[in-house]
Amino acid sequence: MDTLLEQFLTQLKSSVNEMAGLVEEAIVVATKSLAKKDESGLKRVFELENQINDFHKKIDRDCFKLLARQSPVASDLRLLIVCTKMNVDLERMGDLACSISHCIGDYLKLQPVPIGNEIPKMADLVRLMVRQGLDAFLLSDEGMAREVLRMDDSVDNYRDTLSLSIRETLKVSNMNLDAHLELFTIVRNLERIGDHATNIAEEAIFLISGEDVRHQKNEGKK
Amino acid sequence: MDTLLEQFLTQLKSSVNEMAGLVEEAIVVATKSLAKKDESGLKRVFELENQINDFHKKIDRDCFKLLARQSPVASDLRLLIVCTKMNVDLERMGDLACSISHCIGDYLKLQPVPIGNEIPKMADLVRLMVRQGLDAFLLSDEGMAREVLRMDDSVDNYRDTLSLSIRETLKVSNMNLDAHLELFTIVRNLERIGDHATNIAEEAIFLISGEDVRHQKNEGKK
Repeated sequence: MDTLLEQFLTQLKSSVNEMAGLVEEAIVVATKSLAKKDESGLKRVFELENQINDFHKKIDRDCFKLLARQSPVASDLRLLIVCTKMNVDLERMGDLACSISHCIGDYLKLQPVPIGNEIPKMADLVRLMVRQGLDAFLLSDEGMAREVLRMDDSVDNYRDTLSLSIRETLKVSNMNLDAHLELFTIVRNLERIGDHATNIAEEAIFLISGEDVRHQKNEGKK
Repeated sequence: MDTLLEQFLTQLKSSVNEMAGLVEEAIVVATKSLAKKDESGLKRVFELENQINDFHKKIDRDCFKLLARQSPVASDLRLLIVCTKMNVDLERMGDLACSISHCIGDYLKLQPVPIGNEIPKMADLVRLMVRQGLDAFLLSDEGMAREVLRMDDSVDNYRDTLSLSIRETLKVSNMNLDAHLELFTIVRNLERIGDHATNIAEEAIFLISGEDVRHQKNEGKK
């Protein structure tokens, strides 16, 4: 029979997982709207962000209550701190998915320019990073978490290639400048979601092994 | 005579303040390099980021130790949680200041385009938000924290005006496209630093009044 604290911690992990599921859905819905040139899905992203924000507040309250009333120690305390931080990252991802949706909304009002397959592929990879980061945390799978860190390199490559391609297109002609700048911003924001998923994977590694792997990569990149 | 816990908490606040000072310096040094078209300062920003990252790890360790060994309750516990979160925001600001410096480095390699006074003014306002958010936290001044939230509206206005101006320039001519896109990215990143300063002010308000003012503004903006 689980103790009361164990039950609370299980519920907390489940809330974090549910919140991450909403973030994943927001990324999928936004990208689908872009690929299908159909803005009807964007409203759904804004609804999802509201739900993500509600989780943000709820998880903070739950963590505080648990800390105050149950005085957890050792690995339970570490778990609580990690959940507090993952909560920050997931909220920022929801915010970024929402920013992306605003860009898509503006993009769809303009003369369409070809988007190719690369942005949807990048978005799918970013979504996978979120899921895999969470799974690594839930399953205490350090290898899976480290894979997320490697996936971030691919996301950065997508960002570089796509940004360069947009620049090259605009150098040939500045027609459809606004549409291309929306895509440019979407790519940047997707990359930022990848950064937050990386934070989650790093937190998972800290929880599993006690190792602080943050700031080992070449950071502060553009 | 202060208790041991009180002494630790005073040290912790002092570390957070010192870390914020480094972030401020990074913003100032980066902006000066841009305004003076002199890249020699950028190296200093990268050094500052390393120091910010060291604080990031140290503050996390200190918070964890305090939670584990001193079992703080009520307002002390709230203070610790708030420091944990401010630490995340300050680290991201250092990261963004570093991204801005990479952009400035690339910008300075290109044919210079006029930058005007608006970007330095925006950067100065963002730096002030960081300082005022921290002061509000250290002095428990709720009014000052709420002022930071209002300053963020001005930062968003700068972002909108500057982005529009860059778009308009590029519509007239795509000459110097790369330089303008660097400025476009710098403006975005400054705005993101403002968002993190807003988080700090919101945390300060929570600490002072117990009120959770997050997600009351129109969010998920571009």
